[in-house]
Amino acid sequence: MHLHLRDGDMLRLVCADSAGPFAGAVIMPNLVPPVTSAEVLTAYRARILEAAGPHAAAFQPLMTLFFQHYTEAQLAAALPDLFAVKLYPHGVTTNSESGIHSISAADPTFRLMEEMGIPLLVHGETTGFVLDRETEFLSVYETLATRFPRLRIVMEHITTAAAVTLLDRFENLHATVTAHHLIITLDDVAGGMLQPHLFCKPIAKRPSDRDALLAAALAAHPKLMMGSDSAPHPREAKECCGCAAGVYSAPVLLPRLAQLFADHGALDHLQAFISGNACRIHGLNPPDKSITLVRESWTVPTRCGDGSGPTVVPWEAGSELEWRVKA
Amino acid sequence: MHLHLRDGDMLRLVCADSAGPFAGAVIMPNLVPPVTSAEVLTAYRARILEAAGPHAAAFQPLMTLFFQHYTEAQLAAALPDLFAVKLYPHGVTTNSESGIHSISAADPTFRLMEEMGIPLLVHGETTGFVLDRETEFLSVYETLATRFPRLRIVMEHITTAAAVTLLDRFENLHATVTAHHLIITLDDVAGGMLQPHLFCKPIAKRPSDRDALLAAALAAHPKLMMGSDSAPHPREAKECCGCAAGVYSAPVLLPRLAQLFADHGALDHLQAFISGNACRIHGLNPPDKSITLVRESWTVPTRCGDGSGPTVVPWEAGSELEWRVKA
Repeated sequence: MHLHLRDGDMLRLVCADSAGPFAGAVIMPNLVPPVTSAEVLTAYRARILEAAGPHAAAFQPLMTLFFQHYTEAQLAAALPDLFAVKLYPHGVTTNSESGIHSISAADPTFRLMEEMGIPLLVHGETTGFVLDRETEFLSVYETLATRFPRLRIVMEHITTAAAVTLLDRFENLHATVTAHHLIITLDDVAGGMLQPHLFCKPIAKRPSDRDALLAAALAAHPKLMMGSDSAPHPREAKECCGCAAGVYSAPVLLPRLAQLFADHGALDHLQAFISGNACRIHGLNPPDKSITLVRESWTVPTRCGDGSGPTVVPWEAGSELEWRVKA
Repeated sequence: MHLHLRDGDMLRLVCADSAGPFAGAVIMPNLVPPVTSAEVLTAYRARILEAAGPHAAAFQPLMTLFFQHYTEAQLAAALPDLFAVKLYPHGVTTNSESGIHSISAADPTFRLMEEMGIPLLVHGETTGFVLDRETEFLSVYETLATRFPRLRIVMEHITTAAAVTLLDRFENLHATVTAHHLIITLDDVAGGMLQPHLFCKPIAKRPSDRDALLAAALAAHPKLMMGSDSAPHPREAKECCGCAAGVYSAPVLLPRLAQLFADHGALDHLQAFISGNACRIHGLNPPDKSITLVRESWTVPTRCGDGSGPTVVPWEAGSELEWRVKA
C-alpha cells in the first residue's frame, strides 16, 4: 500500500520485483516533476504496466496524485485511474520540494476529496528534530480527522508507538507500516557502523516504538496495512557522502515478512496484514492471484541490476532468508 | 585532550595537522593491537614524534595506555612517558574489542592509578540503545567518582546535557567535548541526507544537548576541556556500506572553534577552553608555542592525502571558513 517505482531505467529494473508477487500496489507520485494531472497519471500508469511485462495482466497499479490544490474538474478527470492523493509537507523527504507549506490552506481540496470519496495519504512529518518529526505531526492528523470525518486518511509508514495509539482514536484514521520498521531501530542504522541501506524517512526509532508497531502488525490490527515504502536509489546515491533516504525492500518483502510472522507464531495474520486489511478498508478488488511461500533458505543477492542500467542494493543484501516465494 | 593519530601511513598523513598548531595532545591508545605496555607506548610515542617531523620539538604527545588490569610494576614502567589510562567498555567504539567487560572487577587498577596520580579517561557508553548509551553510563561515573575520590576522572567526548550537569556534582570528575558536538546534532547526521563524515561515537544528540554543551564551552566551564576526538578513517571506510565512526576534525579545529566562539562573542574564553583548563586541571606544562588566528576566509579541502597513501575527508570539507591559522 505504499510503493516507489520511480521511472525510466529504474522503473524497468524494479517493477517486476513488486508486480511479480503482488496483485496491486499504491504507487507514490513523487517523481521529478511530481504526478499532478490526469494526463501524467494515466501515462505513468501505462509505463508501469509496460515495465511489468508479463506480470501486467495480474498487477493493479493504484495511482496517486501528488497533493496540491485541485479543482473538482481536475480530480474528476483523474478519477478513472485515481486511487488516492498523497500529501507531502514541503521538504520532508525525497522529491518533496513541491510539497505544501500550509495544511490549513488546503481545506477546499480536502473537502472535495471527502465528497468524492478519494483517500488522503499523508507523509506525516514536521521539519523538526529528526526523532520528533512524526510525533510532532500527530496533532495535524487529529485536526484533519476531526474536521473531515468522512475523509479516509492514511498515516503513511508510521514509525512510533504514539502513532499506533492514535489509530484507535479516530474512525477515519488508518495507517501503513513498512516491513523494515517492524524489524529495525535506530541502532541498526547508526548504533554500530553506519548503514546507509537502512537509512530512510521517517528514520527508524526506538526499540519501544518498533515493538509497538510489531505488536500491532502481528495482531493484524484492523486499521494497519503493510506499505513497503520500497524505495530504490542507485547504489552511488546510497554509499556516498550525502546518502539518499530509502530502503529497497521489494525483492525480499514477502519472505522477510513470512519469516517474521512465523518467528512470532502469527502466520495466520500475515494475509490480513499484507492485503486483507487494505482490501477491506479501501474496498479494493485486485486481480485474482495467489503465490506460495515456502520454508526454503536462499541468499539475497548483493546487487540488483546487470550493469546496463542502475544498480540497487536490496534490503538484507547478502543475508540468508528462511522463506522464499515459490517460483 | 583527545586525539586519534592512528599509526603507519595514516599517522604520517594526519600527524602534522595536530602537531603543527598544537603544543600537545592526548593520544588515544586504541590501535590494533591496543597500547598496553611501557614498551609499546614508548615506541608509539617515538613514531609520533618522527611523523611530526619539524613540529616534534614543540609538540608533546601525552601518551595513554589502553585500560586493562595493570600491576604497579607495569604502570611504574610506563610512567616516564605515561599521561593517563583510557578505559573502553567492551565493544562500544572503533577498536574497542579489547575493552573491559566488568568495571567493578577493575578496582585494583583504579586504586593503583589513584595512588600513583594517573588520570582515568573513560569512553562512557553502555551497549544500550544508541541515544541512551551515555546517560545510561552516568551512574558508573558516579560510582567511580565516589569510590575513588582522589582519582582524577575524565568523561571523554560528552554529548548530553545530563553529562554537563554531572560535572558539577563530583570534584574529581572532569570532561572533554569535541568541537563538532558543540555544533552538530543528530539532524546534521541523519536529518536530511545521511552524512557519513559526521557519524561518530558517541553519536550527536538532540539540540537541547548540543545547546548545553555549547553553553558550558562558551563559558569556559572550569572542568570542561576541548578534546577534538579527531578520528581519521580512509575515505573508503566512510563512504560505503557500513561506515566507520569518527570525524576528522584536526585540519579545521582551531579556525572552526574561533568562528564559533566569535559568533557568540566569547573569543576571550577560547584559550581556556582549548588549553588553559586542561593545563590547570592536569598540571601540564607544554612547550611554549603560540599561533595566531586571523579572520580571513578559506575553503577547506575536500580531501587530505596525495593519493600515495590513505585519503581522508576532513570535517567541513569544501566549506568556507571565516578564520584561519596564520602561516
